[in-house]
Amino acid sequence: MKLVTYIAKERALPISSGRLPKEARIGWVQEEMIVDIGLAQQWAVFNHGLPKTQILPTDMQCFLETGSQGLETLSQVAETVDGKDLRSLQVEGKLVARSMQTVTLLSPLPTPRSFRDFYAFEQHVKTARAKRGLDMVPEWYEIPVFYFSNPYTMIGPEAAVEKPWNTEELDYELEVACVIGKAGKDLSVEQAMDYVAGFCILNDWSARDLQRKEMKVGLGPAKGKDFATSLGPWLVTLDELEDRRSENELDLTMVARVNGQELSRGNVRDLTYSFAQMIVQASRNCPLQPGDLIGSGTVGTGCILELGTDVHRWLEPGDEVELEVERLGVLKNKVVDSSC
Amino acid sequence: MKLVTYIAKERALPISSGRLPKEARIGWVQEEMIVDIGLAQQWAVFNHGLPKTQILPTDMQCFLETGSQGLETLSQVAETVDGKDLRSLQVEGKLVARSMQTVTLLSPLPTPRSFRDFYAFEQHVKTARAKRGLDMVPEWYEIPVFYFSNPYTMIGPEAAVEKPWNTEELDYELEVACVIGKAGKDLSVEQAMDYVAGFCILNDWSARDLQRKEMKVGLGPAKGKDFATSLGPWLVTLDELEDRRSENELDLTMVARVNGQELSRGNVRDLTYSFAQMIVQASRNCPLQPGDLIGSGTVGTGCILELGTDVHRWLEPGDEVELEVERLGVLKNKVVDSSC
Repeated sequence: MKLVTYIAKERALPISSGRLPKEARIGWVQEEMIVDIGLAQQWAVFNHGLPKTQILPTDMQCFLETGSQGLETLSQVAETVDGKDLRSLQVEGKLVARSMQTVTLLSPLPTPRSFRDFYAFEQHVKTARAKRGLDMVPEWYEIPVFYFSNPYTMIGPEAAVEKPWNTEELDYELEVACVIGKAGKDLSVEQAMDYVAGFCILNDWSARDLQRKEMKVGLGPAKGKDFATSLGPWLVTLDELEDRRSENELDLTMVARVNGQELSRGNVRDLTYSFAQMIVQASRNCPLQPGDLIGSGTVGTGCILELGTDVHRWLEPGDEVELEVERLGVLKNKVVDSSC
Repeated sequence: MKLVTYIAKERALPISSGRLPKEARIGWVQEEMIVDIGLAQQWAVFNHGLPKTQILPTDMQCFLETGSQGLETLSQVAETVDGKDLRSLQVEGKLVARSMQTVTLLSPLPTPRSFRDFYAFEQHVKTARAKRGLDMVPEWYEIPVFYFSNPYTMIGPEAAVEKPWNTEELDYELEVACVIGKAGKDLSVEQAMDYVAGFCILNDWSARDLQRKEMKVGLGPAKGKDFATSLGPWLVTLDELEDRRSENELDLTMVARVNGQELSRGNVRDLTYSFAQMIVQASRNCPLQPGDLIGSGTVGTGCILELGTDVHRWLEPGDEVELEVERLGVLKNKVVDSSC
């Protein structure tokens, strides 16, 4: 399923403050419509006598915490709706499904419980280090390495990215991320994928001048990323990707376009460390929980830093960045001036 | 005031899973006793007719979110209790205050909303870099730099620290941290201290071998710290420190002892970057919120990495590490074997 967090368009567009508007709800995508999970369950209970053993939550974090039981209930709800005329379904005068045009999609997981971003595509690491005058280090080949980033600056597929007032080098990063769906610690590579709820596209917006300075000191990145991360457009559950998965490898083409011009192209299978290996590393000595977000790092060619400013200048207000990953959709955001 | 999160000792000691036991409550320290905030308010309402305009929460995050209004209500409650025989106060048969011996103190803020750890004491940075064969970089003198760390592995002053099974170089770090009490973005250095709720001692436990490897790759630290951070023993509100504060400088001696032997000594006033400057940096392009935690970084001499293993070997199960900071109390933790 393609799970979304959404808000009806007649409500004001939320700001990226890390606070979820109380009108936000969760749904799934079906036939170009968003089916509301809570209303669909009510409809299924009233009209099909579906047992109301577990009331499904209306926000994604709580839904993820229901684990496989929640997914099972959701799939029963979806089955009762399947084949019906979605436009006609109502519960107490409310429409169970709405067309895409009448909703704003937020980040599917508006505030992940935590956000670890890895550095797992060799080509990106090699090129990014070379740009800073650094060779590859043997340690990179020994363990998958990550940094913690800010989970409170997530924005969805329709929100604008405010260019920080103190950067001249705004960049995008083409990544894929997985969301953890089950608690676990010290996992093995064989267990790891059972702990994944699903995958999203992730754009790890970066202020390269800020990042370059702080990383010279030997920490971070932190402020270089501490303003916006886009996630979406939906959370695609793992079962939808089975035919593109072989063991722990996923075969999904990744593309980035700026103002319609293709700049980046890669594939999730180019990962040197699989998501399973990243999860193993993240879970060492520390329990993972539902809602934890794990980013892949940038795919080779997946940012302007790598391509060079002779290929494309740094991003400016007005630019539109579109990340497309097979099966995961399109994540599009416009850059705007900082509001402060 | 000295604010605590506590749990009655007859309940089982909670594990450090980042989940707060539901029996946990908040209180303040008075005459070697813990006064429960919720019960004291009930007592003040019943016995002194204190208006019940705002019911104070029973957990620290929610209390911090009440801001200055919550602190004002709390101080009215504390005034009515002041001078009374604490041992005799009861509400519906429940004791309003309990002796220290009958409670377990948890981390005052069990799960900070976020955890940024800075690197703001010059002596530590110089020595730690030298140990890795690195010179000081000019960028360190331009901006205060931090990394995001895991807010879900906080433990309190009485919890044991599990030595990760995959480290041979476990270390402590003597730090002070402030907790944000008010929302704000792009703050100025003049505004910054108004956003501080209070200060705590912080022990940023570190696995040096894990950290060394990941930092060679140029990210983090992440797994080198991703198992435990101690915070406590209480959150001391800013007003208690006024006589030790001059502008943005705090004069508080910091000491660390391992098994009773003093190894580290410094002072908060040795900070090259003040907490106000760290808050300015943290708040750039990103709103701070109540419950955000900001660590100072390690004071000079404040860890074994700096002192050298000729002064003290790496930590082992059985070792007891005691951090003492003037006015902030003593934060003591024992190292134990990993449970897995």
